[in-house]
Amino acid sequence: MDQPEHIKKWFAPAPWTTTDCEIDLRPGGMFRTVMRSPEGQEAPGVGCYLEIIENEKLVFTDALAPGYRPSVNPFFTAVILLEPHGEGTKYTAIAIHKDQAGRKRHEEMGFHQGWSKCLDQLVAVAKKM
Amino acid sequence: MDQPEHIKKWFAPAPWTTTDCEIDLRPGGMFRTVMRSPEGQEAPGVGCYLEIIENEKLVFTDALAPGYRPSVNPFFTAVILLEPHGEGTKYTAIAIHKDQAGRKRHEEMGFHQGWSKCLDQLVAVAKKM
Repeated sequence: MDQPEHIKKWFAPAPWTTTDCEIDLRPGGMFRTVMRSPEGQEAPGVGCYLEIIENEKLVFTDALAPGYRPSVNPFFTAVILLEPHGEGTKYTAIAIHKDQAGRKRHEEMGFHQGWSKCLDQLVAVAKKM
Repeated sequence: MDQPEHIKKWFAPAPWTTTDCEIDLRPGGMFRTVMRSPEGQEAPGVGCYLEIIENEKLVFTDALAPGYRPSVNPFFTAVILLEPHGEGTKYTAIAIHKDQAGRKRHEEMGFHQGWSKCLDQLVAVAKKM
């Protein structure tokens, strides 16, 4: 799931799609995506990875551009945690914002529903691999 | 050199002093300092560590607060590199800003002279340890 062609299959909540993706999976390495609505609205995102522990933890942020350069429009840091749970895996996604306004904005963008939908898409893709 | 009592001995260019320091030396862990001028002007700084490779590389930033939370007033990321050089060590300090204005501001604050002076102080402290 660490290749752009995989990310493109699940990273944007349908009917949005992920039209572009670049991954340099190391601390400070680029994580760049472009999401696109059916109407053609594009939402580009660029940031870098902070922590990568295989099958346990992934942290990335848009507060730092690749190479750790402070970014012009920081929005959030994402922490993804995976842990064994029964016969499956517990998946936890945490979004960390600089203030309440950022958190509220993300909620109003549909964070909870969107990320849940993406997780369903991720599971569907994984089952086919 | 990874303890607050060590940092306090060299981190601020004299006649400034480092009056407070907190270190949680792990990715995402707090790095907090307070520098103070002879006139009592205080310059607090808080951020987090990003990469720690003993005797090789240290990266910290104020663009992220501890726990990777995007910060309100990001200024720069510091990359410190150490490598063997003859019988000694080559020390490289890189400051990465979000734009030219930030870089200029840091230069005008006396970045080059200040960090060089701190390095001299660090060497003097290390020789006594």
